Amino acid sequence: MAVTEQQARRALAGVMDPELQRSIVDLGMVRDVKVSDGRVTVTLALTTMGCPLKDQLQKDTRAALLKVPGVQSVDVRMEEMTAEEKARLYGDQKQEQGGLAEKFNHVEHVVAVMSGKGGVGKSLVAALLATGLRRKGLRVGVLDADITGPSIPKMFFPNGAQPGSSPIAILPAETSTGIKVMSINLLLEREDQAVIWRGPLISGAIRQFWTDVLWGNLDYLVVDLPPGTSDASLTVLQSLPMSGVLLVSSPQGLAGMVVRKAAQMVRQVGVPLLGLVENMSYFIAPDTGKQYDIFGPSHPEIMAAQLQVPFLGRLPIDPELTSLCDYGQIESYKGDAFQPIVERLSQMTPEAKPPAMPAPAQGR
Amino acid sequence: MAVTEQQARRALAGVMDPELQRSIVDLGMVRDVKVSDGRVTVTLALTTMGCPLKDQLQKDTRAALLKVPGVQSVDVRMEEMTAEEKARLYGDQKQEQGGLAEKFNHVEHVVAVMSGKGGVGKSLVAALLATGLRRKGLRVGVLDADITGPSIPKMFFPNGAQPGSSPIAILPAETSTGIKVMSINLLLEREDQAVIWRGPLISGAIRQFWTDVLWGNLDYLVVDLPPGTSDASLTVLQSLPMSGVLLVSSPQGLAGMVVRKAAQMVRQVGVPLLGLVENMSYFIAPDTGKQYDIFGPSHPEIMAAQLQVPFLGRLPIDPELTSLCDYGQIESYKGDAFQPIVERLSQMTPEAKPPAMPAPAQGR
Repeated sequence: MAVTEQQARRALAGVMDPELQRSIVDLGMVRDVKVSDGRVTVTLALTTMGCPLKDQLQKDTRAALLKVPGVQSVDVRMEEMTAEEKARLYGDQKQEQGGLAEKFNHVEHVVAVMSGKGGVGKSLVAALLATGLRRKGLRVGVLDADITGPSIPKMFFPNGAQPGSSPIAILPAETSTGIKVMSINLLLEREDQAVIWRGPLISGAIRQFWTDVLWGNLDYLVVDLPPGTSDASLTVLQSLPMSGVLLVSSPQGLAGMVVRKAAQMVRQVGVPLLGLVENMSYFIAPDTGKQYDIFGPSHPEIMAAQLQVPFLGRLPIDPELTSLCDYGQIESYKGDAFQPIVERLSQMTPEAKPPAMPAPAQGR
Repeated sequence: MAVTEQQARRALAGVMDPELQRSIVDLGMVRDVKVSDGRVTVTLALTTMGCPLKDQLQKDTRAALLKVPGVQSVDVRMEEMTAEEKARLYGDQKQEQGGLAEKFNHVEHVVAVMSGKGGVGKSLVAALLATGLRRKGLRVGVLDADITGPSIPKMFFPNGAQPGSSPIAILPAETSTGIKVMSINLLLEREDQAVIWRGPLISGAIRQFWTDVLWGNLDYLVVDLPPGTSDASLTVLQSLPMSGVLLVSSPQGLAGMVVRKAAQMVRQVGVPLLGLVENMSYFIAPDTGKQYDIFGPSHPEIMAAQLQVPFLGRLPIDPELTSLCDYGQIESYKGDAFQPIVERLSQMTPEAKPPAMPAPAQGR
């Protein structure tokens, strides 16, 4: 049975670009296909010959074609795209302008974790939420929007991490369980380097974490917000296609006041409030098992009722968890206090709104 | 013995404007003095006839003149200043432009409390520092530079507070022990109202808290910085005449990393680092007296050595203190863990640098 070019092209349609997660046929990367006596010669066009995923692409292409009945041998050649081919791939935008990654991202739910006040455990809740969603088998990313005090990488990467390189985008770092992470600290030479930027630069960096990072297909993107209701929070709530905001509080009266400010801001920009989690609710002495309200008595249900948001649960102060956070091993946390919160949240998150940004992504 | 006009004018030179704390003669407020047979008639010029301190000024003037031997009676008349008199008082600046208060402020030491990270207890340390300095009999103010998450007023005022009104400036609120406080929350209708401002507005508000608030003569102005190394921190460190910065950390590894970022920023803008205080170091169970390292083991001395700053002390987590903070009664805290820190700090604070702001204050 003679192999036809049509059969070969059908097989190629099933080969995905490992980075963009789209068919190489759809991406216009198949420049030429020749079939002769069961021998297939394919020429693929790459955005750059320095593409780090070149070998995998070659292997996948060969494997797909060898599955076609009658194919005896496969020759995969690679060339660089012409300027016109690149322009077709990238659309109207110029490569230098950024925003290319956004075209290839598809994120179902964007959930921000916010408290207004610092140090109540936003980053911890964001990390536990991402870990819990990942344990359910979902595809999860974490965008660390705290540019001046980023906590996320330290919780997930015991030995630090670098983002991947790609000609068209920044690739997020991946944790041991496969959570994709982007944080300014992944881009700094030293983790304790100060980022002394005024508001517009902070906002610009956060926008780039959305438009220039190749998140790919995600079920959830968890956004860890910094304290406050200024530039970073405003930019996330106004520029990203938010599904909703998860509020984090602590038993301190001060925290309650500031969380109410945060809730008011979220309402003003028209984003749904998904619920309230109280962190640092109590401390259980590991030796005696006795419970201490070290930050005062806790009434998160009343606060949630005042804010008219669902109360999702309480988290104790757990020295083991603090230690796991400090050593980049939050994903191995055994405590189950957070999983019910993950379950409830994953049932209630609306799909992400279309992005409110200028020049919205095409092809999503 | 006949009273002379010269004697009367000398007595008037000792009368201070209660608001500006300058002699009414120096301020050009004495428009006319007539002496006849032991009867003195004085005409004072006020910036506005609505001045809330008019009565006190009248009383003080009368009392000063009655002390002059031979004075039988005093008649104090009050008129409003002419435009020229006001211009002379205010200097070149127009009243509407603000910045008038700064001319009358004299602050010896400006100390900012910073950590980079939120929730490690900056505001608590700032409030304890102010309280401790005040207990030593010093004149103390607290400038709350956390515009989106202000904690200071709640710690000092059990029933809220309003700033005073004055024709030329904002008057800080005063605590029960006489600490002067300015915070955005004193200017809001409701304490949990959100302030959703981008960086330039945040910076503008902080600058106004320096230029438009009548702090008067202070030995110490303690500035409570928000988390982060962005607009608020930059503005304080660059625009205020800083004596130095006190760093606050917690045992969490995350906090350590972010505090190192903050220290780097302070060094970059050329402000002295006064030392490091560790908060939340441990928790002592009130029933058993046992100590728990609930946020992990603590090595602040090592951290201080790495940062090359003096280590000033540790503060435990004290539920009583949390409760006092939540009820506006921090000034009645009995614990003495903080007083040694106050002592050391008050020995090492350099005098405030001349301000680096455009149009520096005259007459300081």
